[in-house]
Amino acid sequence: MKVVFGSPGTWSGLLLRTGQWVFAGASIGVMLSAFGFSNYTAFCYLIASMGLQALWSLGLACLDIYALRVKRDLHNPLLVSLFVVGDWVTAALSLAAACSSAGVTVLFARDTDFCKAYPQFSCGRYQISTTMAFITWLLVATSSLVMFWILTSA
Amino acid sequence: MKVVFGSPGTWSGLLLRTGQWVFAGASIGVMLSAFGFSNYTAFCYLIASMGLQALWSLGLACLDIYALRVKRDLHNPLLVSLFVVGDWVTAALSLAAACSSAGVTVLFARDTDFCKAYPQFSCGRYQISTTMAFITWLLVATSSLVMFWILTSA
Repeated sequence: MKVVFGSPGTWSGLLLRTGQWVFAGASIGVMLSAFGFSNYTAFCYLIASMGLQALWSLGLACLDIYALRVKRDLHNPLLVSLFVVGDWVTAALSLAAACSSAGVTVLFARDTDFCKAYPQFSCGRYQISTTMAFITWLLVATSSLVMFWILTSA
Repeated sequence: MKVVFGSPGTWSGLLLRTGQWVFAGASIGVMLSAFGFSNYTAFCYLIASMGLQALWSLGLACLDIYALRVKRDLHNPLLVSLFVVGDWVTAALSLAAACSSAGVTVLFARDTDFCKAYPQFSCGRYQISTTMAFITWLLVATSSLVMFWILTSA
């Protein structure tokens, strides 16, 4: 199996996984600190989805660290197939969460004057959290494509 | 290249493409008939995204009809690669549109009492249109996976 940028068990792979759980964790942190988020299903779903993403990426980052320490090769078809399925599922869930939050955030900030009318609402934090969710999705999408590439070019 | 369910230039492929543009068109139609949709960015984006999806699927359905009439084989790597890229891009856009509309619809119907407070708003139609967008996405996702399968097992 080819070793490309973002392969499991490499420094670039570890970097990509670290980026994913850091941004997912930051997205959760910012949303949790925003006033009134729990009244909106989309924001609660964002936290659940980013939580799942952070756990998945953190797990794979730990596996990368282990592989780097004991110099173990993680490029076997069964393991990469598992990574592909997990990455595609979490990527779809992350995109869904980011988009539903973006829909609600745009509604508050642009379509209605909700943010201006109620300045106690943390519209800025909703936007930052949603942006971080999109960055997380971009990083996971990169991982998904790399994993698929490795699997199919085996 | 393998011929599987949903392959380009087959009756099953034509059925899948027809399902996609019919549901995308129905989603647009229901949303256009809903009062006040144009005030919300998410719903306007749903119409744009479903419009692109309907055009793409209709184009491929016409190509399937042509291939079936002249008994032409569409299984060449260049053409299938083009279908894969188009399907993945439109699938991602459709999922994004469906999720952002779902976020706003759930906000109106469950998180706030907007639908009860303003019965003149067509909340039911927003829900039907969003559901149809999700069905469209499921059908496009099926096509995407089939195309990728055909390409990688070539």
